[in-house]
Amino acid sequence: MDRTELDRLCINTIRFLAVDAVQKAQSGHPGAPMGAAAMAYTLWDRFLKHNPRNPEWPNRDRFVLSNGHASMLLYALLHLTGYDLPLEEIKNFRQWGSKTPGHPEYGHTPGVEATTGPLGQGFGNGVGMAIAERWLAEHYNRLGHQIIDHYVYGIVSDGDLQEGVSSEAASLAGTLRLGKLIYLYDDNNIQIEGSTDQVFEENVALRFQAYNWQVLGPIDGHDVAAVEQALREARADREQPSLIICKTVIGYGSPDQDTAKVHGEPLGEENVRAAKEALGWPQEPTFYVPDEVLARVRRAVQRGHEAEEEWREQLKKYRETYPHLAAELEAQLRGELPALWDGELVNLFPPDSEPTATRVASGRTLNSIVKKVHALAGGSGDLAPSTKTILADYGDLGWHHYWGHNMHFGVREHAMGAIVNGMALHGGIIPYAATFLVFSDYMRPPIRLAAMMGLQVLYVFTHDSIGLGEDGPTHQPIEQLMNLRAVPNLTVIRPADATETVEAWKAALMNKDGPTALVLTRQKLPVLDRRELASADGLHSGAYPLWENSEGNPEIIIIGTGSEVHIALQAGRQLASEGVRVRVVSMPSWELFDRQPAVYRESVLPTHVKARVAVEAGAKLGWEHYLGLEGAVIGMDRFGASAPGAVVLEKFGFTPENVVATAKKVLSR
Amino acid sequence: MDRTELDRLCINTIRFLAVDAVQKAQSGHPGAPMGAAAMAYTLWDRFLKHNPRNPEWPNRDRFVLSNGHASMLLYALLHLTGYDLPLEEIKNFRQWGSKTPGHPEYGHTPGVEATTGPLGQGFGNGVGMAIAERWLAEHYNRLGHQIIDHYVYGIVSDGDLQEGVSSEAASLAGTLRLGKLIYLYDDNNIQIEGSTDQVFEENVALRFQAYNWQVLGPIDGHDVAAVEQALREARADREQPSLIICKTVIGYGSPDQDTAKVHGEPLGEENVRAAKEALGWPQEPTFYVPDEVLARVRRAVQRGHEAEEEWREQLKKYRETYPHLAAELEAQLRGELPALWDGELVNLFPPDSEPTATRVASGRTLNSIVKKVHALAGGSGDLAPSTKTILADYGDLGWHHYWGHNMHFGVREHAMGAIVNGMALHGGIIPYAATFLVFSDYMRPPIRLAAMMGLQVLYVFTHDSIGLGEDGPTHQPIEQLMNLRAVPNLTVIRPADATETVEAWKAALMNKDGPTALVLTRQKLPVLDRRELASADGLHSGAYPLWENSEGNPEIIIIGTGSEVHIALQAGRQLASEGVRVRVVSMPSWELFDRQPAVYRESVLPTHVKARVAVEAGAKLGWEHYLGLEGAVIGMDRFGASAPGAVVLEKFGFTPENVVATAKKVLSR
Repeated sequence: MDRTELDRLCINTIRFLAVDAVQKAQSGHPGAPMGAAAMAYTLWDRFLKHNPRNPEWPNRDRFVLSNGHASMLLYALLHLTGYDLPLEEIKNFRQWGSKTPGHPEYGHTPGVEATTGPLGQGFGNGVGMAIAERWLAEHYNRLGHQIIDHYVYGIVSDGDLQEGVSSEAASLAGTLRLGKLIYLYDDNNIQIEGSTDQVFEENVALRFQAYNWQVLGPIDGHDVAAVEQALREARADREQPSLIICKTVIGYGSPDQDTAKVHGEPLGEENVRAAKEALGWPQEPTFYVPDEVLARVRRAVQRGHEAEEEWREQLKKYRETYPHLAAELEAQLRGELPALWDGELVNLFPPDSEPTATRVASGRTLNSIVKKVHALAGGSGDLAPSTKTILADYGDLGWHHYWGHNMHFGVREHAMGAIVNGMALHGGIIPYAATFLVFSDYMRPPIRLAAMMGLQVLYVFTHDSIGLGEDGPTHQPIEQLMNLRAVPNLTVIRPADATETVEAWKAALMNKDGPTALVLTRQKLPVLDRRELASADGLHSGAYPLWENSEGNPEIIIIGTGSEVHIALQAGRQLASEGVRVRVVSMPSWELFDRQPAVYRESVLPTHVKARVAVEAGAKLGWEHYLGLEGAVIGMDRFGASAPGAVVLEKFGFTPENVVATAKKVLSR
Repeated sequence: MDRTELDRLCINTIRFLAVDAVQKAQSGHPGAPMGAAAMAYTLWDRFLKHNPRNPEWPNRDRFVLSNGHASMLLYALLHLTGYDLPLEEIKNFRQWGSKTPGHPEYGHTPGVEATTGPLGQGFGNGVGMAIAERWLAEHYNRLGHQIIDHYVYGIVSDGDLQEGVSSEAASLAGTLRLGKLIYLYDDNNIQIEGSTDQVFEENVALRFQAYNWQVLGPIDGHDVAAVEQALREARADREQPSLIICKTVIGYGSPDQDTAKVHGEPLGEENVRAAKEALGWPQEPTFYVPDEVLARVRRAVQRGHEAEEEWREQLKKYRETYPHLAAELEAQLRGELPALWDGELVNLFPPDSEPTATRVASGRTLNSIVKKVHALAGGSGDLAPSTKTILADYGDLGWHHYWGHNMHFGVREHAMGAIVNGMALHGGIIPYAATFLVFSDYMRPPIRLAAMMGLQVLYVFTHDSIGLGEDGPTHQPIEQLMNLRAVPNLTVIRPADATETVEAWKAALMNKDGPTALVLTRQKLPVLDRRELASADGLHSGAYPLWENSEGNPEIIIIGTGSEVHIALQAGRQLASEGVRVRVVSMPSWELFDRQPAVYRESVLPTHVKARVAVEAGAKLGWEHYLGLEGAVIGMDRFGASAPGAVVLEKFGFTPENVVATAKKVLSR
């Protein structure tokens, strides 16, 4: 069989695995896999450097399917090239417990590099992966030792390019000249509501040229030779990311091809039959993989084995020549922290420290940690001087200086979130992303995906309440803190002072199975005197009695978080002076607290103490979780107001006096 | 004084009002007003059609300051042109209770057309306003009667153009050929982290040409004549929106001009002095407005009065010629609903209806309402066939058919949110925006702003739980429902069945002081038989006893929302058959319930009934608000999974059996 004919057979195998799987599941998206099979096959067969038997090989090329609804395209490729994804799993597409969920899920299916589905996210992830590749290469490669050297490929759709996150990420990728980033654009002119023309008449080629990308095509996306040639050109340009515009026909081969009908539901028995006939495919068996196809595509196993072996030889030489560098790189790739990494943090904030904003304490802590933890790199959405996230001695990341640790994302919170996800997915970096807490709203989708994927991504969210003052309600977060707490597998920490901030950073570094959000003040806070108060390492239990006059038998418990803890403490002492038995609890993290054993939680918040007051300058919704219906929360159930921070806090009742008054009311119920 | 000199004086007045106000407040952003004063002045002096004494005049031009941190620029213009904003308010910039908050707030300061500050939002609002203008014009203008005919202007900054939402909105605006939309781009090359070059090397002109915009410039943004000429050209092109690239110097006149230092803090006394000297401005008095400046700019009052009077004359003639149209338009502009608008809704879903997804019920209700309420227009982020939001007989909105009620936003949820805000701000339209509930995450910032501005915007969020099934965790909302509830002034309604869906739409139409989110199922639900159950109009109280066997004296209360109500009901009946005194409460809206008098709330959830179970296929966080610490919630505290919806719901415990078992556990505590 000649190569063209074999290619055709391989491509049709992918198409009909997708068609049959969707048909059997009675659910899914056949159109995109049918249209994009040729371009994906060309990439995987001719170029993609990967090892199906070791999906974790660090120097593999990365492949991101940004239009995750085309999941069957990816599953077909993974199965055919020899990943641990048997045909049974394809037949179990979209069923409970299968390895083939509706959208690709990182960590669930071997070979899936990113969880995709929410459009535009994969586009941003790829940019982050390409940054990580350059960053590690500049840090660790040496003349004759190209230990980190790979491409990042992706398939992106009309929908991906309509989402703003991809515009943000594309603009930054062009500015950074990420030449090893190559996206195949599946330009099929169809979206769910019909032709793309009614909403998307823009000139995509011109737009990406404006972003400083190399734009190739439009080419016929069904033509293997054309795709191969374009990929060669894309790979050759190392100074610009590449967008290859591939004209395709959605649902290629189906009677309903080139319409929205083939996008998101099974073709139906009749059209499956017609499509197989049209493309010369046998009606039976379903899930048919011709032997010659398997022989061709499974070469990936041998090729992958050889490629990785060759790399391991290189690594061996590298280790011999640069043992220290190699050890550091390998530890970073394994996600390990160096020994004694937190050793210098102990005395950052002695008891007599000046009042310090927790954002400032965070900046000092971060700068101390990075001296040991070289994997830390990140930045802010154009707010670094305010978020205090600049690593003073670690340079800016930019074109021709990819080694810098300080990234500049621009005013692009959404892309920032997607890009740090890509960096974490790549491995070798512990990325952080910073902005004002209220602007976490701009990056909700990637935060959710970081949590879903279990990525170690750190968020530094400053200006965390109405206490930020004059910027007013648009900048004053209300619901954001509670909204982050509602995200499964996201750990949210709002430290009470500088000493808790140090512990919060430690907790974030140690939490490798999901993202951590640090929620920090703009305004100065007293540094709590730990000689008189419980130790700040109580933070790791999420909540702890900070101070009490009750010898373990309080009448009332006052709970504070973050900037309200010192107010709670003042109120507690006032009540104590009036003869009330009080416990003041600092509760920096709901998630850490809820993970403690019941006996610990009971010791902090004994069931029989029903009189409880919480004080937190955020939404009240949710606090009954710790207060029940008999307590009271001093919080916000409206938007804030523009005035100096101290005035705003006072006007809305965040004062010791109001806490005392509220506590008395609760006690008298 | 010659005109050039007078212009210069006016511009410097604006600059130093801003400088002095920021200096006095010891907080704010002087740099942008100093750089953009000339272009803003030129627009307001030479072109802007407005009436300072009636900021509500419907046919005024709209002006949006997308970079809201330049608020003092706007306040200076409002004060000078004669809005009800005395100089005292300028002196009170950023203070408690002033009319001059840190960022412009719609509804708070006369003449502020949109609350801005979160970057990119104003850009999207302007697109929405321009759509509204075209829509109303095509509906209501007649030959010789141009009742609706105005421009939409805005100032946009580097930060605005970096945000993805502006890319989304710009692409749609170009596709729709919104020729009366004109943005002045304050291109000063500086952002907070330094020069824009490190993150924003893109060719903005080329990018906007790609979007099908007319791009003018770069011109000198400090040159009145150049700005005037460019605005003339922009106004002349009625087939393309225009971007005028104005090169400016941030902090113009300050020794630190052209650096990030002048962006976000007071210049400091010394630099204020130096700037005044450099621009030939008297050091004293502060807040100086020369008489000749006031005489010039206050002409706006007379001009505005004449312009509105002329329009009122036209309107009079229009009323005489087209009394019905005029009455409808005027009612819409006042935000009134027509008489008997909900008359046809009564019998949409009789008791013997087939099981119906609430998204389908919503679609039928919406199509019924629009026959009376012609102000309804909206669309979806490319999911209309799934969100069921197509108005069958009301046409598509597009170029050359702006009258259509069905908008197509493309896969651009964020811009959709900002655009519908702009439509609502314009007035005359009740806009709706639809997508899957999980993708509400893409549009959090505009949802928050709609709530803050008190806009009547309707959200149709379908596929509202893990019950959507196969699409899996990326598409299954968990935290979204609770997160929306946490937004102040947003009313969230999750109806239990088709009959409650009808009532939910009624509630949404009647809620004119803030946005309403309808949260709807993908899957079919039984239509509750209201002959045996309480009436669906209980929805308007937020929660109501749906059924009970306890004659007002229950042992246990089972609360359900949305698709879980029928499960709660089955469980309640099962428990009743076992001799338990049960009340089943349908709770479609927390906000509506919490607004009821205490006596009503107590009647639904009597304090003494501590045994309570809630069942809702979303995040558990928050439910203790109604359950206290002695109840139990059947909800989600992890991400979902890909499998058919019924399987997923069962696996996660959303079954009558599990509700019964949980209820028994609670009863036995």
